[in-house]
Amino acid sequence: MLEDILKQVQTGSLSINEAKEKLSTYENLGFAKVDHHRKKRQGFPEVVYGEGKSKQQILAIIKAIRSKENNVLVTRISEEKAEHILEEYPEFIYNETAQILFWKQEEESVNSKGYIAIVCAGTSDLKVAEEAALTAEALGSNVRRFYDVGVAGIHRLFDHIEEIQNATVSVVVAGMEGALPSVVGGLVSHPILAVPTSVGYGANFNGLSALLTMLNSCASGISVVNIDNGFGAAYNAVLIDQLAQKGEVQQ
Amino acid sequence: MLEDILKQVQTGSLSINEAKEKLSTYENLGFAKVDHHRKKRQGFPEVVYGEGKSKQQILAIIKAIRSKENNVLVTRISEEKAEHILEEYPEFIYNETAQILFWKQEEESVNSKGYIAIVCAGTSDLKVAEEAALTAEALGSNVRRFYDVGVAGIHRLFDHIEEIQNATVSVVVAGMEGALPSVVGGLVSHPILAVPTSVGYGANFNGLSALLTMLNSCASGISVVNIDNGFGAAYNAVLIDQLAQKGEVQQ
Amino acid sequence: MLEDILKQVQTGSLSINEAKEKLSTYENLGFAKVDHHRKKRQGFPEVVYGEGKSKQQILAIIKAIRSKENNVLVTRISEEKAEHILEEYPEFIYNETAQILFWKQEEESVNSKGYIAIVCAGTSDLKVAEEAALTAEALGSNVRRFYDVGVAGIHRLFDHIEEIQNATVSVVVAGMEGALPSVVGGLVSHPILAVPTSVGYGANFNGLSALLTMLNSCASGISVVNIDNGFGAAYNAVLIDQLAQKGEVQQ
Amino acid sequence: MLEDILKQVQTGSLSINEAKEKLSTYENLGFAKVDHHRKKRQGFPEVVYGEGKSKQQILAIIKAIRSKENNVLVTRISEEKAEHILEEYPEFIYNETAQILFWKQEEESVNSKGYIAIVCAGTSDLKVAEEAALTAEALGSNVRRFYDVGVAGIHRLFDHIEEIQNATVSVVVAGMEGALPSVVGGLVSHPILAVPTSVGYGANFNGLSALLTMLNSCASGISVVNIDNGFGAAYNAVLIDQLAQKGEVQQ
Amino acid sequence: MLEDILKQVQTGSLSINEAKEKLSTYENLGFAKVDHHRKKRQGFPEVVYGEGKSKQQILAIIKAIRSKENNVLVTRISEEKAEHILEEYPEFIYNETAQILFWKQEEESVNSKGYIAIVCAGTSDLKVAEEAALTAEALGSNVRRFYDVGVAGIHRLFDHIEEIQNATVSVVVAGMEGALPSVVGGLVSHPILAVPTSVGYGANFNGLSALLTMLNSCASGISVVNIDNGFGAAYNAVLIDQLAQKGEVQQ
Amino acid sequence: MLEDILKQVQTGSLSINEAKEKLSTYENLGFAKVDHHRKKRQGFPEVVYGEGKSKQQILAIIKAIRSKENNVLVTRISEEKAEHILEEYPEFIYNETAQILFWKQEEESVNSKGYIAIVCAGTSDLKVAEEAALTAEALGSNVRRFYDVGVAGIHRLFDHIEEIQNATVSVVVAGMEGALPSVVGGLVSHPILAVPTSVGYGANFNGLSALLTMLNSCASGISVVNIDNGFGAAYNAVLIDQLAQKGEVQQ
Amino acid sequence: MLEDILKQVQTGSLSINEAKEKLSTYENLGFAKVDHHRKKRQGFPEVVYGEGKSKQQILAIIKAIRSKENNVLVTRISEEKAEHILEEYPEFIYNETAQILFWKQEEESVNSKGYIAIVCAGTSDLKVAEEAALTAEALGSNVRRFYDVGVAGIHRLFDHIEEIQNATVSVVVAGMEGALPSVVGGLVSHPILAVPTSVGYGANFNGLSALLTMLNSCASGISVVNIDNGFGAAYNAVLIDQLAQKGEVQQ
Amino acid sequence: MLEDILKQVQTGSLSINEAKEKLSTYENLGFAKVDHHRKKRQGFPEVVYGEGKSKQQILAIIKAIRSKENNVLVTRISEEKAEHILEEYPEFIYNETAQILFWKQEEESVNSKGYIAIVCAGTSDLKVAEEAALTAEALGSNVRRFYDVGVAGIHRLFDHIEEIQNATVSVVVAGMEGALPSVVGGLVSHPILAVPTSVGYGANFNGLSALLTMLNSCASGISVVNIDNGFGAAYNAVLIDQLAQKGEVQQ
Repeated sequence: MLEDILKQVQTGSLSINEAKEKLSTYENLGFAKVDHHRKKRQGFPEVVYGEGKSKQQILAIIKAIRSKENNVLVTRISEEKAEHILEEYPEFIYNETAQILFWKQEEESVNSKGYIAIVCAGTSDLKVAEEAALTAEALGSNVRRFYDVGVAGIHRLFDHIEEIQNATVSVVVAGMEGALPSVVGGLVSHPILAVPTSVGYGANFNGLSALLTMLNSCASGISVVNIDNGFGAAYNAVLIDQLAQKGEVQQ
Repeated sequence: MLEDILKQVQTGSLSINEAKEKLSTYENLGFAKVDHHRKKRQGFPEVVYGEGKSKQQILAIIKAIRSKENNVLVTRISEEKAEHILEEYPEFIYNETAQILFWKQEEESVNSKGYIAIVCAGTSDLKVAEEAALTAEALGSNVRRFYDVGVAGIHRLFDHIEEIQNATVSVVVAGMEGALPSVVGGLVSHPILAVPTSVGYGANFNGLSALLTMLNSCASGISVVNIDNGFGAAYNAVLIDQLAQKGEVQQ
Repeated sequence: MLEDILKQVQTGSLSINEAKEKLSTYENLGFAKVDHHRKKRQGFPEVVYGEGKSKQQILAIIKAIRSKENNVLVTRISEEKAEHILEEYPEFIYNETAQILFWKQEEESVNSKGYIAIVCAGTSDLKVAEEAALTAEALGSNVRRFYDVGVAGIHRLFDHIEEIQNATVSVVVAGMEGALPSVVGGLVSHPILAVPTSVGYGANFNGLSALLTMLNSCASGISVVNIDNGFGAAYNAVLIDQLAQKGEVQQ
Repeated sequence: MLEDILKQVQTGSLSINEAKEKLSTYENLGFAKVDHHRKKRQGFPEVVYGEGKSKQQILAIIKAIRSKENNVLVTRISEEKAEHILEEYPEFIYNETAQILFWKQEEESVNSKGYIAIVCAGTSDLKVAEEAALTAEALGSNVRRFYDVGVAGIHRLFDHIEEIQNATVSVVVAGMEGALPSVVGGLVSHPILAVPTSVGYGANFNGLSALLTMLNSCASGISVVNIDNGFGAAYNAVLIDQLAQKGEVQQ
Repeated sequence: MLEDILKQVQTGSLSINEAKEKLSTYENLGFAKVDHHRKKRQGFPEVVYGEGKSKQQILAIIKAIRSKENNVLVTRISEEKAEHILEEYPEFIYNETAQILFWKQEEESVNSKGYIAIVCAGTSDLKVAEEAALTAEALGSNVRRFYDVGVAGIHRLFDHIEEIQNATVSVVVAGMEGALPSVVGGLVSHPILAVPTSVGYGANFNGLSALLTMLNSCASGISVVNIDNGFGAAYNAVLIDQLAQKGEVQQ
Repeated sequence: MLEDILKQVQTGSLSINEAKEKLSTYENLGFAKVDHHRKKRQGFPEVVYGEGKSKQQILAIIKAIRSKENNVLVTRISEEKAEHILEEYPEFIYNETAQILFWKQEEESVNSKGYIAIVCAGTSDLKVAEEAALTAEALGSNVRRFYDVGVAGIHRLFDHIEEIQNATVSVVVAGMEGALPSVVGGLVSHPILAVPTSVGYGANFNGLSALLTMLNSCASGISVVNIDNGFGAAYNAVLIDQLAQKGEVQQ
Repeated sequence: MLEDILKQVQTGSLSINEAKEKLSTYENLGFAKVDHHRKKRQGFPEVVYGEGKSKQQILAIIKAIRSKENNVLVTRISEEKAEHILEEYPEFIYNETAQILFWKQEEESVNSKGYIAIVCAGTSDLKVAEEAALTAEALGSNVRRFYDVGVAGIHRLFDHIEEIQNATVSVVVAGMEGALPSVVGGLVSHPILAVPTSVGYGANFNGLSALLTMLNSCASGISVVNIDNGFGAAYNAVLIDQLAQKGEVQQ
Repeated sequence: MLEDILKQVQTGSLSINEAKEKLSTYENLGFAKVDHHRKKRQGFPEVVYGEGKSKQQILAIIKAIRSKENNVLVTRISEEKAEHILEEYPEFIYNETAQILFWKQEEESVNSKGYIAIVCAGTSDLKVAEEAALTAEALGSNVRRFYDVGVAGIHRLFDHIEEIQNATVSVVVAGMEGALPSVVGGLVSHPILAVPTSVGYGANFNGLSALLTMLNSCASGISVVNIDNGFGAAYNAVLIDQLAQKGEVQQ
């Protein structure tokens, strides 16, 4: 691309200012720079991380996105903030468990037979699992949920293991000792995104225990995201799922 | 599969003993159980982790694998142990930097146009990067290496960024502060496997610094494996690369 | 017992000096105090922890024990130190893997049908598992070993699960992510002593990862001992096994 | 059991669907899977962990348990949630200190002479000690309480030491430096379940200090559960107590 | 200075009491000692750290400073406390984002062409960046702000890199993985003060992740201050900026 | 600079290949990329970090640097590796305490009256202090050393305090509790680069104690580098010293 | 004492029950055991730690103490709880800063010329310093306070150093980097009790920074108590002060 | 003292140079500053810490001390270094267990009836205990040793408790869980210096476990020194012992 721009400058088909503008890829809101090129560069429009931003800031960012994009995804947004957005955009959908606000102007039909398995150890980890599931759906993938299948009652997992094995990729969510990804990893042959949660007490140390477990897993095919980062795992899973759908490497 | 076995038992086409044997999927060496079903279950024959095993144990395991498989991959094997194996199997290849011993009876031709980018921050991280690169090649993927492109001289990275962007998936290896995956993550649209290394000193704490950096990355599309785990990152990358090649989800 | 002694003092059947001596329960070797009352107080003669003691010190302690006891158990003793002892006591038996030296004057026949299951995740954890197994045998229990049954290939565990379920108590040894006790804990109904090992690398932090996993296990019936403490787990298991054999609470 | 099912399938006494159902051992509530087979598999009906579950969820789970079981035990349940359950089941009993809600349809008479000693260091650790004591009683064991016997005034402990020595098994609860299990461990000959509590301040680090103390105890016969996990210690103690009562290993 | 005082004592131009008073460099408020000599000794009047002090205490300290100084700077002061001060000193200015209260009797004209670059990774780090920017301005330096230029969209940084390169010194503020100072450090040739922020979640551990990243930076010219310590970074930057303006070392 | 290149491309004074080459700022040695532009970009030629590189690699990098530069600085290089270089370049100078190898073709006369104070707490910290002192001298600054002036005998520091106060900038090196920078920071009005060392034992945790002390210093004007990073502190100090000498901000 | 009791039993001057009672040294309140022998055994009546106890519990314990003792000291007691006690015992005195409630029936005149120096770094550490000062006074020692003398303005400390040097023992309280005890330790020749406080932010980690600093102090004569434990330091200081007053070792 | 010097300067009885020299309290050896005033200021001549110093450096420091002092104490000195000193000073005494080298020209007769109790938990902690014992003796105190009295066999401690109670002050040394000081602290009424040792394994973390235990002790009268710091504990104990002997506070 650099070469292209240089050539266009050389041939005069691009002025110096235009060349400089070509690299100027965002709209400056003052407190934040909205990244309209990200969809091209990274495949998705920018996702808004709602925590630590005021509802006014989130609304302004959404407006900037909406002016050029048909899809919006806001994560970690409280109900109170979401309601502020919903007054302006009543067509948006808010999921309280996952704390996600999203909108798709026109539902893209997902023709793929493939799906992402969201596997979750315990009832208390649901919030993180749903953040992953809704993110993956918002980004255009099929999702199947396998909840409450923790290792303490491993027969529960085995009831569903064939359906999990047939997924393109799995997101495995677990708190406390975080052993579930190791067990799933020994039973499937696709990539696993492991998400430690901060669920637990005592020597759990806010998810550190589950995080270390997953990083040290003796099963192959497992990679790990930050504690409670359901969004990050889903984002990775969707990238992988799309590679599988495209059937050939991207140019 | 459970249903199949039950049906065969019911119809008498499988005796109870045969049914039980069907679930007996490994050969017992006494000190270790070799997993011949793994290739079917997980797509690759078992990889031997050499650390903490004696050369006699490794040799015995290799013999068991060789009796049924055409490919062998041993990681974390010292030169001294490797030489013991090479006396028996002189056709095997040993790479000292990566501490990997491998063999493929017949080179599968890799027709795929896709490749895995192995991106490495500094000269001192080479050992881990090579473990990743050789593992990926041994498991059948194309690999391109981008070494010594750390963030302290970021123009080095930009010289190669288009070739990295065109990869199916990247393995990004970095020690010290481990910032490289974040920077690459902001520039590419495919999945990134981040590998922290134990290279550094002082408050590096044997790779903890780089590990935390990668887990907390503000860039999307990054997942993390254990410190120095070049093998694990490559294993994940190959799974993803194969999904991209197959062009459709597996059944 | 206090009341007994007071009564005997009162009735004159015990002199004051005798009374004081009754509480003086050990033999002073200068550098160590050998505890001959421990067998009565705690059910076993004193076990000698060999690490950090010179071979001369160990020998002197053994002599003091041997003068009053028929059983000797020394743990964490190197081959070089053990050979020094074996010159004096050639009838003793040394196990190099477990680094244990022991001797029983007359083999007590163990009539119990019950046994302790020693379950071990990986080949690298064998040293700790054998320390547990030999300790349990030296202290008089039946032992059955289930090795190399880690969670990454969980079908290996299931092949033996009924025999493990029938044990009185299990000692479950695992390094790396340490998930095995959680899985076993969900499948058996007897107490489990979980032993984290220091086997692993990177974010394993010398066994911290496995230790946290086991402490946070979501399965019930699991308690934990120190990292690599095979002896401690076996000691606990034998106490439980003996309670089961006695069939009634002790007086 | 697997062999039994296979045989029944073979002989036609079990249809394939029945065989599959036999392995389907729980009732699916959507947000949670109630485990009715646990009593058979593990000796007790499922215990409900109340933290992080809504009162509606707890009530639904209790209803599912009550439909097949006569005993109910809910731990870590706040007074406000408990009152919601008590409206439906006024016969249940709630203990505020221990935050436990339980019910036994018919009091099983505990004929055993044996008992579990609950030993507690300080007044501030009472909450954890009571969780242990009530859990053990709910699960059918005799319990004796020895409270406020911390090591700073060790004569307090010695006043009760003979009664503690006569227990089948002890649960020893301590916060701050957590030294009590080591002292008790040197004085008794039965197994000790040590429970560190998060009571303390400064370099206590929410119970880490007591946890490390107990894991490093130089006394034998001690195993450890998670910080504040009075339930877990009691569960283990009851398993041991029942082994002692049964007088022979289970089949 | 010691020699001067001794000489004056010797020549009688200074009485012993005067000599002692010369070393008595503060005014004692009882609960705090205001340091009027600091400006001479350290170049700035004392800055008041507002956290943990009552509004009455802050007011009393300000009065003591105002009696001898024309500039006042209070950091980490809540709006509620600031309002209490503003009632007495309505000419003071309060910035809510930065939680800074300050006042300059006469605006010193800053003639310097030099400026400090305040570079900030994300919107959530603004509070710390503004504390740095306002502190630097209050202490008499020119400041230019470069906000929301984090490494995940590194082209944003490159748009401003020449203006950053032309600064005398940079303060670089980043949370989460804290990679921004490494990238800036590779692109500029002046000193960088790196400020980790506590912004993030999970394995961020309240800023520890960013702190370790910055300490381990492979780029030269970076030094680090405490987590969230925008004031400290600015104070250092102003010292450097003044050295650059003075053009010669101080006497 | 971007604009300049674009203009030259537009006017044809620069071909596209030349423009691309302009951004190609290093020489590729295969295992490392030597950065010849760094001197222009960052003010110094590249400094070679010797640890983890073979003597052959170091020699090759030095040759590449020497082909274009007159100064060479290698840090963390063992005596054995240094001797290998000295055979080729006998004019180089090696300092064993600091483990530094350096060479300046022509001694630049340092006319500045300013100097950097290297202040060192204890004899055991000398190695780090000398790494700082020699680095600063190699990079062209005047240096004055103040060694063995730790806080336990604070009168030692006070003997030299005026000379330290007159420095442009101080590098303060301390191990154990690392309190020296706080004390110096309260006495001088110039910037302080604090270097924690790994000297100490017990709860020192390899320099963590000193590192935390320095980060939490209540004195202003202190910034911190990594544990034992004498080079990094000196590099920063030289940048500041040069700003003070130049007397005006750079363009 | 044991011998005395045995002799009295032997001679019949003490019945067995009386002998047993002699060892029964406390009054059992059910939820707590009040230790009336502590004054004899340890020199002071029992001090009540108010945190985590209800006001009813505290009142009951005070009543038990008051029935036999003339002095009462309650630490870490909130104003609301203190008011509950003051209704019953209006003669008690409550200090809100130190959160201490105390009472002495008859003021013992402290004739000693000796005093304890309470040295405190910053205004924010006052709470802990006052806990120490009031505790020492309640336990019968003279106290002199030296507040706001932190190392950042070390001349403040030097103004008072001779008066501090003349104390029998010092309690030195400091948060943030906790360097003050090291400096004082180099200037005085009596024992120093160092108290780290949790005052600070960022990498202070709730007092860990100051704690490590004090443990690693290079000055001799310093020992350390828990974070914020002003009471513990004062208790130690009083023990030392009393030894100095008594002028001879106790029998 | 400041006033005295000022007065002498004023009256001319002290020249300015003499006044300055009065504050110049050490002899500069280049690599170290020997502190001859310490004995006056701190009561003891300077103790040499041998670790990290060469034998030549130690010898030079000893010579400087010997020129003005009659006592020499070197701690943490290896046998090999000690032999180098002994060649020059054959009258010195070296203790290998404690790694201490010392010499007293004339034995001061210690008339005090008081003594320091050195209490030690296990055989492996002897090295630290002996460092404490020999230090205390070298500094002029009586010492009584109570070794191998750990809490796992608490009756051993009770055999000696009255003799420990009669000491002026106790140094209590313990590794592993470090519970011994808490138990001793509940039984004696004099100050206790607690020394954690690095003896242990697994979750001991090189003495961290024992350190935390001692800092969190629920017994009063305990203060703590750094891990393995037998010297520091003894130094404190001697200061206290001397206060007790002097019978009145120092002027």
